[in-house]
Amino acid sequence: MSDESRIPRSTENDHTNEMAKVRRDFLTHKTGAELKYTGEYTINPEELPGNIENFIGVVQMPVGIAGPVQVNGEYAKGLFYVPLATTEGTLVASYSRGMRVINECGGVKTTVVEQFMQRAPAFIFNDAREARDFGLWVEENFDQIAAAAESTTSIGKLKHIQQWSVSKTRYLRFNYTTGDAAGQNMVGKATLAACEWIKATYPHECQYLLSGNMDTDKKHSHLNMLHSRGKRVIAEIVLKKEVLARVMKVDTQVLAKATVLANTGALMAGAAYNGPHSANGIASIFIATGQDEANVVESHAGLLSHELLPNGDFYLAVTLPSLICATYGGGTGLPTQRECLELMDCYGKGKANKFAEIVAATVLAGDISLACAVIAGHWVSSHDKMGRNRR
Amino acid sequence: MSDESRIPRSTENDHTNEMAKVRRDFLTHKTGAELKYTGEYTINPEELPGNIENFIGVVQMPVGIAGPVQVNGEYAKGLFYVPLATTEGTLVASYSRGMRVINECGGVKTTVVEQFMQRAPAFIFNDAREARDFGLWVEENFDQIAAAAESTTSIGKLKHIQQWSVSKTRYLRFNYTTGDAAGQNMVGKATLAACEWIKATYPHECQYLLSGNMDTDKKHSHLNMLHSRGKRVIAEIVLKKEVLARVMKVDTQVLAKATVLANTGALMAGAAYNGPHSANGIASIFIATGQDEANVVESHAGLLSHELLPNGDFYLAVTLPSLICATYGGGTGLPTQRECLELMDCYGKGKANKFAEIVAATVLAGDISLACAVIAGHWVSSHDKMGRNRR
Amino acid sequence: MSDESRIPRSTENDHTNEMAKVRRDFLTHKTGAELKYTGEYTINPEELPGNIENFIGVVQMPVGIAGPVQVNGEYAKGLFYVPLATTEGTLVASYSRGMRVINECGGVKTTVVEQFMQRAPAFIFNDAREARDFGLWVEENFDQIAAAAESTTSIGKLKHIQQWSVSKTRYLRFNYTTGDAAGQNMVGKATLAACEWIKATYPHECQYLLSGNMDTDKKHSHLNMLHSRGKRVIAEIVLKKEVLARVMKVDTQVLAKATVLANTGALMAGAAYNGPHSANGIASIFIATGQDEANVVESHAGLLSHELLPNGDFYLAVTLPSLICATYGGGTGLPTQRECLELMDCYGKGKANKFAEIVAATVLAGDISLACAVIAGHWVSSHDKMGRNRR
Amino acid sequence: MSDESRIPRSTENDHTNEMAKVRRDFLTHKTGAELKYTGEYTINPEELPGNIENFIGVVQMPVGIAGPVQVNGEYAKGLFYVPLATTEGTLVASYSRGMRVINECGGVKTTVVEQFMQRAPAFIFNDAREARDFGLWVEENFDQIAAAAESTTSIGKLKHIQQWSVSKTRYLRFNYTTGDAAGQNMVGKATLAACEWIKATYPHECQYLLSGNMDTDKKHSHLNMLHSRGKRVIAEIVLKKEVLARVMKVDTQVLAKATVLANTGALMAGAAYNGPHSANGIASIFIATGQDEANVVESHAGLLSHELLPNGDFYLAVTLPSLICATYGGGTGLPTQRECLELMDCYGKGKANKFAEIVAATVLAGDISLACAVIAGHWVSSHDKMGRNRR
Repeated sequence: MSDESRIPRSTENDHTNEMAKVRRDFLTHKTGAELKYTGEYTINPEELPGNIENFIGVVQMPVGIAGPVQVNGEYAKGLFYVPLATTEGTLVASYSRGMRVINECGGVKTTVVEQFMQRAPAFIFNDAREARDFGLWVEENFDQIAAAAESTTSIGKLKHIQQWSVSKTRYLRFNYTTGDAAGQNMVGKATLAACEWIKATYPHECQYLLSGNMDTDKKHSHLNMLHSRGKRVIAEIVLKKEVLARVMKVDTQVLAKATVLANTGALMAGAAYNGPHSANGIASIFIATGQDEANVVESHAGLLSHELLPNGDFYLAVTLPSLICATYGGGTGLPTQRECLELMDCYGKGKANKFAEIVAATVLAGDISLACAVIAGHWVSSHDKMGRNRR
Repeated sequence: MSDESRIPRSTENDHTNEMAKVRRDFLTHKTGAELKYTGEYTINPEELPGNIENFIGVVQMPVGIAGPVQVNGEYAKGLFYVPLATTEGTLVASYSRGMRVINECGGVKTTVVEQFMQRAPAFIFNDAREARDFGLWVEENFDQIAAAAESTTSIGKLKHIQQWSVSKTRYLRFNYTTGDAAGQNMVGKATLAACEWIKATYPHECQYLLSGNMDTDKKHSHLNMLHSRGKRVIAEIVLKKEVLARVMKVDTQVLAKATVLANTGALMAGAAYNGPHSANGIASIFIATGQDEANVVESHAGLLSHELLPNGDFYLAVTLPSLICATYGGGTGLPTQRECLELMDCYGKGKANKFAEIVAATVLAGDISLACAVIAGHWVSSHDKMGRNRR
Repeated sequence: MSDESRIPRSTENDHTNEMAKVRRDFLTHKTGAELKYTGEYTINPEELPGNIENFIGVVQMPVGIAGPVQVNGEYAKGLFYVPLATTEGTLVASYSRGMRVINECGGVKTTVVEQFMQRAPAFIFNDAREARDFGLWVEENFDQIAAAAESTTSIGKLKHIQQWSVSKTRYLRFNYTTGDAAGQNMVGKATLAACEWIKATYPHECQYLLSGNMDTDKKHSHLNMLHSRGKRVIAEIVLKKEVLARVMKVDTQVLAKATVLANTGALMAGAAYNGPHSANGIASIFIATGQDEANVVESHAGLLSHELLPNGDFYLAVTLPSLICATYGGGTGLPTQRECLELMDCYGKGKANKFAEIVAATVLAGDISLACAVIAGHWVSSHDKMGRNRR
Repeated sequence: MSDESRIPRSTENDHTNEMAKVRRDFLTHKTGAELKYTGEYTINPEELPGNIENFIGVVQMPVGIAGPVQVNGEYAKGLFYVPLATTEGTLVASYSRGMRVINECGGVKTTVVEQFMQRAPAFIFNDAREARDFGLWVEENFDQIAAAAESTTSIGKLKHIQQWSVSKTRYLRFNYTTGDAAGQNMVGKATLAACEWIKATYPHECQYLLSGNMDTDKKHSHLNMLHSRGKRVIAEIVLKKEVLARVMKVDTQVLAKATVLANTGALMAGAAYNGPHSANGIASIFIATGQDEANVVESHAGLLSHELLPNGDFYLAVTLPSLICATYGGGTGLPTQRECLELMDCYGKGKANKFAEIVAATVLAGDISLACAVIAGHWVSSHDKMGRNRR
C-alpha cells in the first residue's frame, strides 16, 4: 500500500470536525463518492475518543417509537415507550401491536434471574495430569485469585470460576458481576491480573492465553444458553383467549399447535432461539440506546415457552439467558442514545436491570405479534403494505 | 391503557417532520425526557414509509473508516475503505490494523460460493404416512410449484426444496436466489403463493403454517451453517511469517497453537463461530450500510480455518455460510447508508456479491488483529488506551 | 513389547476351537484370570471369520422377551415378541408394560420415511474457488460418478451427493440406498471407486480423503438428525386417556405437562434425543439380533412429539432419523442372533423395513413406560424391586 | 390382546431353566421360530433376577482379544489384553494394530480427571420469580439437602447442585460421586429422597418431576460434554514419526492435515465425537464386561486433540467426558462378563478408575488405527479381506 492511500490522521487531536472533514474529502477524492449526509451531524467529536477512531461523521438510523407497554417488573414498573432504530418496515408497527395485546392482558411480568460477565483463559500444560492438578489448585486458591482480579476494578466482583479439562489444556471461565456496565473490558482487565498472579504464584510452570474462546464473546454459544452471559431475564404473560381472538384474530388452541410446530422446527434446525424473532427487537433497541451492537448475537438466544391453560388462556414466556446490556459507559452516553435511554428512565447507574426487563418485555411483544401474524396469514401482506416490498 | 397514553399518529401522512415533532413532544410530556438531539436530522421523513413507523427522529451512530484493504475478489478488486458504525472504542483501529497486515501480505482472496434465501412452511397431516407421501408429491410437482412461487416476483427463482419428516409434519424449506436483495420478504410472498397452489392442487387435504421455523429467519442455526442462508462467502490469505512478526509481534507457530486452543474452546462451548469476533465487523458495516441489523445474528456464524505452512507462513480463511446482505432495497437507499455503500462502489443492482466479498475481507482483518492482540497480550491494554474503560 | 506378550495366532486357520483355547490358556497364563465360562459356547468358530479376529469364546448376554406388541406397519403387521439382550434389571419389564398399553390402545402405526447410507470424502484444493468449481463439476457429472460408484455393488444405488464448502475444502456426502444391509462397507467401496474415477477424470489436480467425517459414521451428529442415516422411521399412537389412567395411573394432562418439561430440559442440555430412553431399547434389541452394536450411538437420536387431544387422549410419536439396522450380513447370521431375528420373522433379505418398524415400536413402548413411571413416582422403587439396587 | 398371547411367567420363581424353556417353547409355538441356540447357555438363571425379566436364554456374542496395550495410568499400569465383544469383522484387528503402535511409542498415559453421576429433577412454580427464589433457597440449604440425599446410600456423595431457570421452571442437576458403581439408580434414589425433603421443608408450595431430562440419562448431550457424566478420562500419547511411517505407512504431516479435515467435518456435522470411531471400542468392551450397553451413547462423546510437534512427532489425545462404566454391580458379576473384567484385573471394588483408563487407551488405539487406515487408503480393502463384505 502506498502512503497516498493512507487515511489521514492527526497525531494531536484526531476527534475534531476538521479531521472528520479531511477524511471525508480524502475519501471523496479517492473513491468519487460524496459523503454529504454522513457529514451532517450534531454529535460533538470531542465526546467520541472512547467510542470510535477515524471518525468521518454519522449514519442516521431512523427511530420509531413502539408502545407503550405495561411492564410489571421488579425494576421496571409502569408504561414504557420503547425507541426502536431500524430500517425494516413494519417492525415498529408489529412490536406496537404486540404491546397492545400485552396491555389488554394486564402487562408483562419480568424477572432478572442472574447476571454474569466472563473472560475465559486457557492454561496449557505438558500433560492432562498437570492440567487437572492445576485445576484443583485454582479451586483451593479461589480467594486469592479473586483478590488479584478485583484489585483492578471497584465494581467487578469475581463470583466463581468454571473449569474444563481437554487434553492437556485447562479452560477456566471467570464469572463476574459488573454492576450497570456490560463489563467485557472490566472483566478482561481483572482476569489478566488474576492470570498474572496465578502465573507468578503457581508452584509449577504454566502458560496461558487470555481467551480460549469459552467466554464466548461476540458469538452465540450453547454455553451462554446454559451459563448466563450478561443477564438472564424472563418475561411472562398470560394471554387472554378473548383478547387474542379480538385483537389478533387468533385462537389460542391454534396458537398452541403452531408454537409446537415452530419449536420442533427450531430444534431440528439447531436454532439459537425457538421463537419467531427476538433479534429484531433486540437489535433495534440496542442501536437506539448505544449498546454494543455486536452483542445482539449473544443476546438473541433464548427459549420461548408456552402452555395452553385449561380455561383457554395462553401462558407465554421468553427466557433470554445472555442479554448483554448497559445503561452506563460505552455508547450509552452519546447524545441521541442517551436520550433514548432517558425516554425509559434508563440512563446511568442503577438502571441496568430495569432496562433489561424492558428489553425482555419488548421481545415478548414482538413474538406475540409475529406468531399471530404467521397464523392469521397476513404476515406477508403486512410487509407488502408497509414494508420493503413497496420499493 | 387509556387513550391518552396512545402515541399520536396521522392517518393522512404520518411520515412528516411535523408528526415526528408531535410525537417527540408527546413523549417529553409523558416521560419528562428531552429528545433534542434525536430531533436533529437531515433525513427526509418522506423517504421512510418503507423503513419505519412512528418515526420520531434519528439516532446518530458515529462512523469510522477502516482500511484501505486490498481485496482480490471476483467482484471486489482493489483497495477499499470500509465504513464502520460503532460505539465500541478500538474497534475501527483494530480492523484497520488487520487490514494493514493483509495489504502487506498481498491482499485477501474472496469467493462467493453460493447464495440462497429461504422460507420454510410446515405442512400438517393426520399421520406420518400422509406426510411422507405428500413429500413425494412435492418432489414430483416441483416445476409447477416453482411456477406458482415465481409468479409473484420478477427476480426470485426457486432452486430447490428441502424436506424433513417429523411425526406427522412435513417441513419444507424453499430455497431461492434473490438477486441483489436480501430477499426475505420476496421469498415470503413467493412461498405463500406456492403453498396456496399446493393446498388447492394436492389431491388430499392439507394444512400449513407459512413458517415452521426451519427458515431459520433472524436467528442463528446449525442449519444455516450447513445450508447457506444469504451468501456463503470465503475469504483467504496466506499471512507471511515476517509480516506478522514485524507488524503484530506474533510468531506464526504461536499463532497456530493459540488458534487450535481457541477452536477447541469454541467447539466445547458450542459456539456459532470459532474465530475471535466476526460479529463486530459485521454489525458495524451492516449498520453503516443500511442492512437489516437483526441479520447480524445469522451472518456472524462461521468457521475460521488455518494451516501452518512448511515455510512458516500461515494460511487463514474465514467461511461465512449465512451472510445476509443487500445493496438495494431495505435501508440501503437512505441518505447516509447509501453514501457508505457508494464509498465502496457497492450501491444498487449488481453489487451484492462485491459487497459480500468486502464484508468477508473485513471479518478476516478483524480476526487477524484480535487473534494477534490476545497473543501479544496487549488486548486489554489497547482497550484501556482507546476504549470504553477510559470513562 | 516382547514377543512373549504377543497373542497367539494361527496363520493357517485361526478360527477354530483349538486356537480359541490356545489363546484362553495364554491369557490365563499371562493374567491369572480364568476364562472358563467364556470358553463355553456352542457357536461354530468357522462361522466367525467375517465377524471377529483373535476369537477366544463368547460373552453370554441374557435375553428377555418383551411383548407382544401390536404393530400396524406397512411391513410389520401383527403381534410381535421382542427379544432384548440386557443386563439392566427392569428394562424388559418396563418395555413390556409399555407394550401392554400400546396393545390396549390398538397398536402402533409405523412408517419408514426414507433410507440412506453415506460415505463422505473431502476434496482438498489450493483455494476456495477451485473447491467451488470442483463442486459444480461434480453436479454436472453426477451420472458418471454414480456409474463408477455402482460398478462395485449389485445392491447399492447412489441417489444424490450433498456438498459443503469450507475454506479450500469441498466436503461431499454420497447418499446410497443399500437394500437390507446396513451398508457401511458397501458404500465405502463404492465411494472409493467414485473418488478414484473423479481423481482420474477431473481436468485439474485434486486430492481427497475417503472420509472427512461428515458421514458421520459411528457417532451421533446433528447432520444425521437432519439427513437420515440408515432409516428414518416414525412410530405413532394415540394413547387413550382411560387406558393410561387405568394401567399407568397417569393422567394425560399431567403427562403433557411433564413431557413439555422434559422436552425443554433436553433442548437446554443439547440432547440427541428428547424423550426418556431410546437407547435402552435399541441397544438391547441390537445386541440380541446381531446388529453392529456401535450403531446405537447414531440410532438413539430422535424426537419424541406429543399432542394432548381435545378429548383428553394423547398423541405420541417417536421419530428416529438414523436407525441403522440390517437383517442380512454382519452379525445377523450368527446362530443366536439369527434366531432372535427369526422370532420376529425378520431374518434375511426383504426384511429390513419390517425390522426397523418393530424397533421403532419398541422405542415408543419404552418411552411410554418410563415417562409414566417418572410421573407416577415409582420409577425409583421399581428399580429397587427388580433391578440392580437389589445387590 | 387375548390371554393366549401373554408370555408365560411364574409368580413363584421366574428365573429358572424351566421357565426359560417354557417361554422358548411358547415362542416357538407362537412364531414358528426355533430357539435352539438361544437355549444353550451355562449361565445360572438364579443369578439373573437383578439383570433381566422374562429370561429365555442368551445371545452368544463372540469375544476377540486385542492387545496387549501398554497403559501408563495412575491406576492401570502395564500391559493389558482387552476383550472386545463384536460381530464386526476387522474391529479387533484394527484395535490391535493401534495398540502395537502405542506400545512401540512407549504406551498411553491415562488420566481420570473427575467423575460425577447425576439425577436432574425439575421444580415447577407459578412464575419465574418463585422459581428463582427457590433456587436461592436450594443454595442456602445445600448441606441439609445433601444429608437427605445421602441418607439413602452408603456410597454416594452429593458434591454440588447445578441450576437453570427457564420460564417458571427451575431445573436442578444433582452431582454425586458413586464409588465403583455407575450409580444411576443410586443417585435416583438419593435425589428422590432429597426432593421429598425439599418438598416437605420449602416454606412455599412446589411440585417436581424427578427427571426433567437434564441428567441426561441414556442419551448423548452437549451438557455431558461440558459437565462430565460418569468419568472424564483423557488418554495421551506422543506418536513417533518413525513408528507411524514404518508400521502404518503414514507420514505425520499428512496425518495432521487429515485430522484437521476430519475435525472440521465433525464440527460442520455437529458430531458428538470428532475422531474416527470411539463407539466401536467402547461398545465392544462394554458388552464384554457387562456394562449397561445403552451407556455407549453417552460414553462415545469426546474430543480428539492433536499437535504436530517440531520434531515431526505427533501428540494425540482423546478426551472422553462422559465415560460411564462400573466394575461392580449391574451386569459385571455375570460369569462371562466377570471373567472379561478379571482378565484386566478390573473386577470388583476399587477398580473403576483402572477400567476407565483401559477403555480410554483402547479408544485411542482404535482411532490411531482407523485414522491411519483412511489415509493409507487400505481402509476399504481391509474390510474386504476380513470383514463383512466377504459374505
